[in-house]
Amino acid sequence: MEAMREIELKGHIIDSFLLPKVFDKVMDMNGEFEIIQFDIGRQKTDTSYARLMIKGRDQDHLENIISELHRLGAQLPEAEDVVTETAIKDRVVPKGFYSTTNHPTYVKINGEWKKVENQKMDAMIVITDDHALCTTIGHIKKGDRVVVGKKGIRVIPPERPRGHSIFEFMDSQVSSERPSQSLIKQIAEEILEVKQDGGKIVIVAGPAVVHTGGQQALAELIRNGYVDVLLAGNALAVHDIEYNLYGTSLGMDLNTVELAPEGHKHHIYAISEICRAGSIKDAVEQGILTGGIMYECIKNNVPFVLAGSIRDDGPLPDVITDTMKAQDMMRKAIQDADIVLMMSTMLHSIATGNCLPSTVRTICVDINPATVTKLMDRGSAQAIGIVTDVGTFLPWLAEELALLKKQKAQGK
Amino acid sequence: MEAMREIELKGHIIDSFLLPKVFDKVMDMNGEFEIIQFDIGRQKTDTSYARLMIKGRDQDHLENIISELHRLGAQLPEAEDVVTETAIKDRVVPKGFYSTTNHPTYVKINGEWKKVENQKMDAMIVITDDHALCTTIGHIKKGDRVVVGKKGIRVIPPERPRGHSIFEFMDSQVSSERPSQSLIKQIAEEILEVKQDGGKIVIVAGPAVVHTGGQQALAELIRNGYVDVLLAGNALAVHDIEYNLYGTSLGMDLNTVELAPEGHKHHIYAISEICRAGSIKDAVEQGILTGGIMYECIKNNVPFVLAGSIRDDGPLPDVITDTMKAQDMMRKAIQDADIVLMMSTMLHSIATGNCLPSTVRTICVDINPATVTKLMDRGSAQAIGIVTDVGTFLPWLAEELALLKKQKAQGK
Amino acid sequence: MEAMREIELKGHIIDSFLLPKVFDKVMDMNGEFEIIQFDIGRQKTDTSYARLMIKGRDQDHLENIISELHRLGAQLPEAEDVVTETAIKDRVVPKGFYSTTNHPTYVKINGEWKKVENQKMDAMIVITDDHALCTTIGHIKKGDRVVVGKKGIRVIPPERPRGHSIFEFMDSQVSSERPSQSLIKQIAEEILEVKQDGGKIVIVAGPAVVHTGGQQALAELIRNGYVDVLLAGNALAVHDIEYNLYGTSLGMDLNTVELAPEGHKHHIYAISEICRAGSIKDAVEQGILTGGIMYECIKNNVPFVLAGSIRDDGPLPDVITDTMKAQDMMRKAIQDADIVLMMSTMLHSIATGNCLPSTVRTICVDINPATVTKLMDRGSAQAIGIVTDVGTFLPWLAEELALLKKQKAQGK
Amino acid sequence: MEAMREIELKGHIIDSFLLPKVFDKVMDMNGEFEIIQFDIGRQKTDTSYARLMIKGRDQDHLENIISELHRLGAQLPEAEDVVTETAIKDRVVPKGFYSTTNHPTYVKINGEWKKVENQKMDAMIVITDDHALCTTIGHIKKGDRVVVGKKGIRVIPPERPRGHSIFEFMDSQVSSERPSQSLIKQIAEEILEVKQDGGKIVIVAGPAVVHTGGQQALAELIRNGYVDVLLAGNALAVHDIEYNLYGTSLGMDLNTVELAPEGHKHHIYAISEICRAGSIKDAVEQGILTGGIMYECIKNNVPFVLAGSIRDDGPLPDVITDTMKAQDMMRKAIQDADIVLMMSTMLHSIATGNCLPSTVRTICVDINPATVTKLMDRGSAQAIGIVTDVGTFLPWLAEELALLKKQKAQGK
Repeated sequence: MEAMREIELKGHIIDSFLLPKVFDKVMDMNGEFEIIQFDIGRQKTDTSYARLMIKGRDQDHLENIISELHRLGAQLPEAEDVVTETAIKDRVVPKGFYSTTNHPTYVKINGEWKKVENQKMDAMIVITDDHALCTTIGHIKKGDRVVVGKKGIRVIPPERPRGHSIFEFMDSQVSSERPSQSLIKQIAEEILEVKQDGGKIVIVAGPAVVHTGGQQALAELIRNGYVDVLLAGNALAVHDIEYNLYGTSLGMDLNTVELAPEGHKHHIYAISEICRAGSIKDAVEQGILTGGIMYECIKNNVPFVLAGSIRDDGPLPDVITDTMKAQDMMRKAIQDADIVLMMSTMLHSIATGNCLPSTVRTICVDINPATVTKLMDRGSAQAIGIVTDVGTFLPWLAEELALLKKQKAQGK
Repeated sequence: MEAMREIELKGHIIDSFLLPKVFDKVMDMNGEFEIIQFDIGRQKTDTSYARLMIKGRDQDHLENIISELHRLGAQLPEAEDVVTETAIKDRVVPKGFYSTTNHPTYVKINGEWKKVENQKMDAMIVITDDHALCTTIGHIKKGDRVVVGKKGIRVIPPERPRGHSIFEFMDSQVSSERPSQSLIKQIAEEILEVKQDGGKIVIVAGPAVVHTGGQQALAELIRNGYVDVLLAGNALAVHDIEYNLYGTSLGMDLNTVELAPEGHKHHIYAISEICRAGSIKDAVEQGILTGGIMYECIKNNVPFVLAGSIRDDGPLPDVITDTMKAQDMMRKAIQDADIVLMMSTMLHSIATGNCLPSTVRTICVDINPATVTKLMDRGSAQAIGIVTDVGTFLPWLAEELALLKKQKAQGK
Repeated sequence: MEAMREIELKGHIIDSFLLPKVFDKVMDMNGEFEIIQFDIGRQKTDTSYARLMIKGRDQDHLENIISELHRLGAQLPEAEDVVTETAIKDRVVPKGFYSTTNHPTYVKINGEWKKVENQKMDAMIVITDDHALCTTIGHIKKGDRVVVGKKGIRVIPPERPRGHSIFEFMDSQVSSERPSQSLIKQIAEEILEVKQDGGKIVIVAGPAVVHTGGQQALAELIRNGYVDVLLAGNALAVHDIEYNLYGTSLGMDLNTVELAPEGHKHHIYAISEICRAGSIKDAVEQGILTGGIMYECIKNNVPFVLAGSIRDDGPLPDVITDTMKAQDMMRKAIQDADIVLMMSTMLHSIATGNCLPSTVRTICVDINPATVTKLMDRGSAQAIGIVTDVGTFLPWLAEELALLKKQKAQGK
Repeated sequence: MEAMREIELKGHIIDSFLLPKVFDKVMDMNGEFEIIQFDIGRQKTDTSYARLMIKGRDQDHLENIISELHRLGAQLPEAEDVVTETAIKDRVVPKGFYSTTNHPTYVKINGEWKKVENQKMDAMIVITDDHALCTTIGHIKKGDRVVVGKKGIRVIPPERPRGHSIFEFMDSQVSSERPSQSLIKQIAEEILEVKQDGGKIVIVAGPAVVHTGGQQALAELIRNGYVDVLLAGNALAVHDIEYNLYGTSLGMDLNTVELAPEGHKHHIYAISEICRAGSIKDAVEQGILTGGIMYECIKNNVPFVLAGSIRDDGPLPDVITDTMKAQDMMRKAIQDADIVLMMSTMLHSIATGNCLPSTVRTICVDINPATVTKLMDRGSAQAIGIVTDVGTFLPWLAEELALLKKQKAQGK
């Protein structure tokens, strides 16, 4: 082991798994470590401090290890400013660019630590004047000053919440064998709490919400003020509108579970009706659309982004067919979200998850455990995955929220 | 095509897919057919009649085709008696034995058609005096007269129900994207109807019923008389008893979704308590067990079979640890069932499905679509598969049944 | 039953399930039927003919039934021309428009039957001069003459292939429990046969092809001329390019299964390198990209469509970010396909399946049985679904194709 | 916080996650901790030592916390002997019994630390003379001295392996998107290494091994000496024997993927033939069974346990139909296993996993990610889960093993 370098760790570095992860990573990468200083917090609210000497076979090996530790939240004692290089072309990154984590990140500009804005995973940091902005490669423009290396960058890893929480800290195994109604009750409590504190709740929903019969419950959530943003696609909106115009979803009567006569045309008629009106909003204002998820969004001024996909029929005039434009709008819409509830859509949920900082609490609901596992894997530091049927989940959630509200109103 | 032989088809042979299946099978097996006579039923209640000449490359090829058509329900015009051979040893079948379908079957004994008792799939028919009994290989005894060949045997294939039904006729694709609550409502109506007609309902349930929080609803169904037989394993009973003694399932508090202190021992304590009492019934009588699925079975005289498996802890004294003995008891318990509701257990559901004739309506509920598909595949002629969360399914079902009963009571 | 109307059925109407489906549908919809004439084909190559009187409660009920039967392939004896109405606005369909099936369809224009071009499911037919074009709602322009009602339209339902085929006729249950290698061998034979007849093979592939290690085998298939079109997204191309530039997929070394040092940046570097070059083709020509799936496409002039999605990083310059434009390009690319092989992508596979007529043979490969079931459900008349690991499927397929080719070369 | 008590932690307590888990658990249970002493190992091979004061609201709360920490591996400084109570009845445990973990455990008897034999999860420890035996509740006999409380018990938690390993340390997310062939290669290397060191390899296999076409590869593994024990059920053996006698599995020809004529009887004939011979061994010796998995077991003296289940047909004479007896035999058969490879059976794999100490490396292969997740969850400290098709996995594994052996033979 020829090359060595010091790192520092601060905070609840043991129970937040930062220190064990650092040890783990060094051993996985066949490096060595030595502990220079270690001051452990004696009680659960105290923080700890560690200074470690990391050793590698050679300078390259060492730098690779240091890079990984830095991503975990290890700090480099040097007090230098962040270093940038200029993008030579649109969408072309400088060699050695700094690839972001989804944890809150600070960069040192002119000796001052600045928080990086719009933090997300696997992106770049661009410096403009004294601002630091997290930017995707698609938005890198020729001439942008892109952060390179690790100097002057600090990552703040998520800390374990003190005490018990329904949101798991870091990854836990996803299982369909948990008490669904009790989990839903606790989610209702979290949602209510966030809304009482003026927080922001984002819903990401796939068309199965309508197919499985959850659309009225979701409309109720919106009507009752529990939803601040809706992210979905053409299919959710079309199915919702089809149900509200014709009582069917892809032609199936959602009450009798029989195919309606000429029902296979309803899907197209729904699109056609909105096109005739001009937009969803126009259809609501003209009295054509009188209920449902999209109706409640319009009526309650809940912004929505309907992002296009190659599976779309139509699409509705409100759909953003350019995927990059849609991505930008989604990213803007979720700024400052407190809770994101993802239901029955891998595409929209992953797209949303990609844009979220690790500080946002996420709830992933899907009947396919592999989808939930995948979402949890990229997710935030505090996440809960529920393997259940969204068609029964949503009505229970609406019922629990109504019950809780009533209880609060009665001063319980 | 050198060899040929006549077959007959009777009944609703077109819409019940018998005739198309016969054509399909002949072509799949590279045989030929010629239609000798065809009298089609002119209206939907009329039956049809067809006489076909089937041709094969040689006698063997022809017999192979005829065997398959016979299993589908084709009749051989010959009027001969059924032929038997004697088993030379326990569990040893005569060469050329007749392997049963799960459709109602008749055999001609001394010129009279007798219905085969205990009809099930992939078994043998044993003739005693003038009785014909469907028997598994495990029960074949030396000296048994086992039916061989196809002579004197008639299979009655299932017929399509006239009009719409929630139960699919034959196989349809399994999907998680159907309106769960509406389906549950229709199942509730079917259950109520069967019970009002004095029918028999069998529940097959896995331990996930308890883990997901459905145990109180299932107990309610039993208490309210909707269940005539319960088929399950050690795990369901232990988890149910654990929940009723300690409020937990495998140590997890089902209400708070937290692990209870010392909760990991509850599972073992539950077994121990029942062993101390003597049996589940003893525990109920001694006032130790005061609620839940097993309690309601005891209190309402609902017979149950708890079949052992190699995964079992304990097991409870009531568990039949010999799998062949358990199989026999299950088979007896489901005689004359009208509806079998299978929930969250592949092992017990397949074991049950193996013993059912095709005339029993089956409802398969599981969160894993592959499990539902597999169960539907062996299932009855009338089956519905629902991909949902049993922890939300059962409470909705209980609620719908209560609602329907109230409506009926009010003369609606 | 007050209203009645005659329909005709022609062809292999029994074994292709047309006649039983007609009976089935009438009974499901609570209508009645009477058979007026029935001439059955006596042998397996003969066709049959049926004339039926369909009855409904009233004219509306009857028309609903007739519509459904017409979609199945029932013919209305009337000899009238097709009827059109004019679209009053872009993307707005006339009331009563004819919604297409995915079966070959003919319309009568000026007394002559014309084949509808670009047949696909759930679309409209637009008449221009004496052409009939299948068009999606997104392409309906103000003034288009859109077909309405059922007059002058004939649907040719798929017929059962005579004899055994690896491709299932209509829906069969999807299972992971089938002999994978034997199935792969038969698929290899089908592919070879199609290519020897000058047929067209389309590959639809998701990023898991690369993650699971199937990229070299797919590149080999392209190099050896088995692929005529590749439909994929940004992710497949980026992962393939990342692997070829850095040996990793999302930073994981695909050989050692370890994370490469700084590997998390490789994904972005791969995009950046192609952006720097200008396009994938430019990167190949500049000697930057020297192997892999995309490289082989360029080198072998295999057209590809990379359709954008909201999950995309970058995206690559070759990606069509507008989903409607991408859909159009996909639809053009698959014209006259003989076989479509869909692997590990629900999004692109469903989008492709939506554009295919029922005459195209489809092979659906995914590790998730629910995905395969969903794809089979919309699929063609001849389809095979294989629940397997694409990372082992592709290498076996490449090996089988190489073996078969060698055998053919040796005159076996 | 009124009650307090000291605990000690020893070993690689940070990177093996022992210390962070202790902190985590205390906070989850709303307790407090204070660090009394902390000596950290400075380098990766050094061990650490910590002494902590744990505080609870009251004595009960404290004891609950201490119990959980003790299960994780925390040591209580007291130097007392283990305490026992006498079972008052068969299968009845004393109140406060000690419930085991799957980690190596020591108990102090007469001042000496004795290793507990047959360590497994969720069982009891019974003391006889100076022996300590891990025993399931089913084996507790009246009069047994069962360990209660926590005194005189030490749990040795698993330690993180130094350096990189294919076996994950503790739980990691299960995914189908990993390079299958590369993983198989590394598993082959592990297996070869274990066998070269004279280690013991246990195979647990479900019937899908045969259905998917993996039976020849598994037979090859046995023939080549890579398998020391086979755990399976009736179905695997019957399907294997059916394939070897008739070329089919449940009647399907595994090469042509067509149903064989009269194939549905093969399953029963296979059972009948073995019953006629007397046993599988008899059938091999009489020249009836000449190949396959069971044949190779007999020929190579590889012991097998065929455990009965309620799904069984027959069963074969070799099947242990009593589940408790089968469990005992399985438990004996896996003593001192080094690697357990579980393939395509949840029932047998969980039953096996329940009996394994945490020190055994486990490989879980299944096409259903939920099954793999569930198995990993109960698994050993070192485990790898692979979501793939066993029908392609086994042939690749056999091929890799053959290749590696050849390379070793050539001195590479």
